[in-house]
Amino acid sequence: MVTKTLVNHCLSTSYDQIPQEVILHGKRSLLNWMGVAAGASTHPSIDILLELTNELKTAEQVSIFGREEKVDLLMATLINGTSSHIFDYDDTHLDTIHHPSGPIAPVVFALGEHLGFSGKEILHAFILGCEAELRIANAVYPSHYQLGWHITSSTGVFGAAIAAGILLKLDEEQMLWALGIAGTQSSGLREVFGTMTKPFHPGKAAQNGLLAALLAKKGFTSSEKILEAKRGFASVLAPEHDLEKVNVNWGTDWELLKNSFKPYACGIVLHPSIDACIYLHKNVSLEDLKSIELKVNPYVLELTGKETPQTGLEGKFSVYFTAAIAFLDGEASEKQYTDEKVKDQKIIEMQKKISITVDEAIKEEEVEVKAVLKDGSEITHKVEHAKGSIQNPMVEEELLTKFNSLVEDILGKSSTEQMAKILLHLDEYPSIDELIQSNKKSEVLSK
Amino acid sequence: MVTKTLVNHCLSTSYDQIPQEVILHGKRSLLNWMGVAAGASTHPSIDILLELTNELKTAEQVSIFGREEKVDLLMATLINGTSSHIFDYDDTHLDTIHHPSGPIAPVVFALGEHLGFSGKEILHAFILGCEAELRIANAVYPSHYQLGWHITSSTGVFGAAIAAGILLKLDEEQMLWALGIAGTQSSGLREVFGTMTKPFHPGKAAQNGLLAALLAKKGFTSSEKILEAKRGFASVLAPEHDLEKVNVNWGTDWELLKNSFKPYACGIVLHPSIDACIYLHKNVSLEDLKSIELKVNPYVLELTGKETPQTGLEGKFSVYFTAAIAFLDGEASEKQYTDEKVKDQKIIEMQKKISITVDEAIKEEEVEVKAVLKDGSEITHKVEHAKGSIQNPMVEEELLTKFNSLVEDILGKSSTEQMAKILLHLDEYPSIDELIQSNKKSEVLSK
Repeated sequence: MVTKTLVNHCLSTSYDQIPQEVILHGKRSLLNWMGVAAGASTHPSIDILLELTNELKTAEQVSIFGREEKVDLLMATLINGTSSHIFDYDDTHLDTIHHPSGPIAPVVFALGEHLGFSGKEILHAFILGCEAELRIANAVYPSHYQLGWHITSSTGVFGAAIAAGILLKLDEEQMLWALGIAGTQSSGLREVFGTMTKPFHPGKAAQNGLLAALLAKKGFTSSEKILEAKRGFASVLAPEHDLEKVNVNWGTDWELLKNSFKPYACGIVLHPSIDACIYLHKNVSLEDLKSIELKVNPYVLELTGKETPQTGLEGKFSVYFTAAIAFLDGEASEKQYTDEKVKDQKIIEMQKKISITVDEAIKEEEVEVKAVLKDGSEITHKVEHAKGSIQNPMVEEELLTKFNSLVEDILGKSSTEQMAKILLHLDEYPSIDELIQSNKKSEVLSK
Repeated sequence: MVTKTLVNHCLSTSYDQIPQEVILHGKRSLLNWMGVAAGASTHPSIDILLELTNELKTAEQVSIFGREEKVDLLMATLINGTSSHIFDYDDTHLDTIHHPSGPIAPVVFALGEHLGFSGKEILHAFILGCEAELRIANAVYPSHYQLGWHITSSTGVFGAAIAAGILLKLDEEQMLWALGIAGTQSSGLREVFGTMTKPFHPGKAAQNGLLAALLAKKGFTSSEKILEAKRGFASVLAPEHDLEKVNVNWGTDWELLKNSFKPYACGIVLHPSIDACIYLHKNVSLEDLKSIELKVNPYVLELTGKETPQTGLEGKFSVYFTAAIAFLDGEASEKQYTDEKVKDQKIIEMQKKISITVDEAIKEEEVEVKAVLKDGSEITHKVEHAKGSIQNPMVEEELLTKFNSLVEDILGKSSTEQMAKILLHLDEYPSIDELIQSNKKSEVLSK
C-alpha cells in the first residue's frame, strides 16, 4: 500500500494546503536551480546534447535555459536537467545527499511552457514532486547510496513522474502506472562521478519520469506497487530500507524545508574555510597580512588536500587554492574556479601564506582561523555553521547574488534581473510566458 | 580491465572472423526477431508509443516494422524493441533466460536504415552486440535475475551500445565511454511483468544503448571501467558475480549459438505438452478420440494450471486450453491465443477430454502422453526434448512458418515472403533498402 498511499497523498494535497514557508522555499529552490542550469548552459556537454537533437531533427517545442535553442519536451528535460548539475553547485537535501530540484524543475518548466500552466500550478507540482522523491530517498538512505546508486537520479525519477502526473492530471490508476514505469527506469551509478555522465543523471531521471507520466496518461499499464513489491524498487535497489518513511507525517513534515543551497561552487567540506577567509577578506588587507592558519576537520585535507591544482576543476579539490581566492576575491563562485585562476601568480603566492592544521575536535561544519599580520597582531575567528547550512541558510539577497553571478554573463543584466524577479514571485504569474521571454540575451555580452 | 578487454575484443573481431554457423544463427535470430516485432505492431501499447511520437512531432527518420509510420532514430529503437517482446514469443538464451535480439536488432536496423549500412555490417554489429550482452549476463546470472532485475534489459543496454558503437565506428576510448553511459542507465524490474511495461524494457535498453553510443561518439565522457568498478554495474546490481565470464574463450565460444527460438506462443514449460498433442493431431482424428492423459513435470500445473481461462492471455497459463488447441489446430501460435478461442465451445468441450498427472520423474523438457480411443485402443508417445530446445531446434522451414504466421496478416503474403527472403540472405545485400521496401502492405488484407 506504500505506493498507493503516496499517490493518494500527492493527488489529495491541494496548492492551498501547502504552508507558505514551503511555497517560499519552493520558489527559492527554483531560483537556485535556474541559476545553476542557465549558468552551465554553455558547457561542452550541453553542446553535445544539442548537436544530437539537431541530428534527430527534434521539434522546437520548449526552451533550453541560457540558450536560444528549443527542442522537444523529452529532450528539453534531459538537457536542462543535465545542465543544472554540471557545476555541482545545485541544492542539497543534506540528510540524503540528494539534489532535489535537478530531476523535477526541468519537467515542470517544460510542461509549463508547452501546455501553459500557471506559476501556482508549476509550484504545486514541483513541491509535491520534491516531497515524493525526498521521502523515497529517506526510505532507502544510506544503504542505497552506499551500494553505489546516485540517489538524485534513482529516486528523482519518481519525483519527476509525480510532478508531471500532477500537471497532466493523472487519475489514481494512471499515477500508479506512472510510478511503475518510472521505477523500472530507476538508474544512475556513482562510478561515473567525475565525468560528464554524472550531471547526465538528473537529466535522464527528469526525462524518464516525464516519459512515464506521458505514457501512463495514455493508458500504458504498469505495476501498481513498484515501491514495496518483492521485486520492486526498494527490495532490489536498497539492501536495507524503511518504507514507513515514505508516507509518515505527510502534510505536517515537509522535506523540502530541509533543502539547502550552496553559496560556493565546491564541495560542502570546504565551505567553513571559505566563510573564514571571506571574514578575513572583510577585515584584513593583503598588504597587512603575513599568514593565515586554518584549523580544520580531518575530512578537509582528505578530500581537498591538492596543493598545486592545474585546472579550475582541480581547484575545487584544493583547500589552499580555495582559501586563497576566498581571501583575495571575497567569494568562491564558478568565476573563481577557472583554468586561468589556478595559474595566476598572485593567487599562487597567496596559497603559500596559508597553512592547514587538522584537528579531530573540529566538526565538519566548523573551522577556526587565525590571521597573523605583519605588525605581529593576530585576528582569530570561529565558524560554527557554514553559510548554506540549515542553521545558517543563504538569505534571499545572497541567493540573488549567486544567481546573478551565474547568469549575467549568459543572459545579460536586464534579462537576469527579470528572470530572478519572476521566479521569486512565480505564484503571482498566470503563465510562464514572461519567464520564457526573459530567457534571451538582453544585451551584447563581452567575454 | 574487464570492460577494456571486452571493448578490445569487440573492436578487433572482424566479420570474417565470425564462424559461418554463427552468422547463419544471427540471420535466423533476426528473422525470428522481425516476425515477433512486426507481428505485434498493431498492439495497443505500440499505438500509445506512436501517439506520443506524434505529440513530440518526432522526425520521420526510420521505420517501425509492421507499420507505415516513421519516427526518429531513438524513438524507433524504443518502439521496435517494445514490439518484439509483446507476445513473449521472442528468442531465448536458456542459460540466463535472456532474450538477446530484443535490445540489439532495433539498433542495427535503425542505424542501418538511417546511415546506409550493408547486410554484413549489420550482422557484424548484431552478433557482437549479442555476444557482449550474453557474456555480461553469464557473469551476473543467477543472483542478478533472482534479485529482481529483468536481465534482458539490464544487460541488453550494453549490447545495444556495443552494436551501435561498432556501426558508428567508435574508437577504444569512445566505446569505453559508451559502455559507461549505457551501464549507468541499466534498469528494468521484474515487478512490472504482466503489464505493458515488460516489453517496454528491451525497447528502452535499445534506446538507452544507442543514446550512449551516439553521445560517446561526440566526446561525452564517462567511466572507463563500468563493469568491474567498486560502484559499477556488477557490484551494484549483482550480489554475486564472476566477471571472468565476460571475456573467457572469446572468439572460440559463441553464446549466440545457444540462442533458441520458441515454436509456440506461450511459456516454455508448456512446449513438451504441445509437441505431444501435435503428435496426436497428426495420428488421431477427433471423431475417434475418447481422452488424452498427459503426464507432466510438477512445474506445468504450478505455472499453467488455469482450468477455465477467460482471455487469450490467460489461455497461455492453461495447460488444458493449450493442449486442446494443439490437438485441434496442430499449432500453438498467437492465432490460437485469442479472446474468441477461449470461449469457443468446441475447444471448451475438448478441454474436458484432457487430464493431467504430475510426476516428479518427468523432467521439465519431457512429457508422456496417452490417447485413449473410442474403440478402446491406446496411443502413447514420449517427448524427450521439446521443439525449440537446443537439442531439438526449430529448423529453417519451421522458423519461416512461424514468421509467416506472425507477419502475413500484417503485411500480406508477398511482402512477408520478400522480407523473410532478405533476412535469410542478409549478408548478400549491400544495403537494407529492399528490406525497408518490404515493410509495406502488399495487398488489401481482410481482417
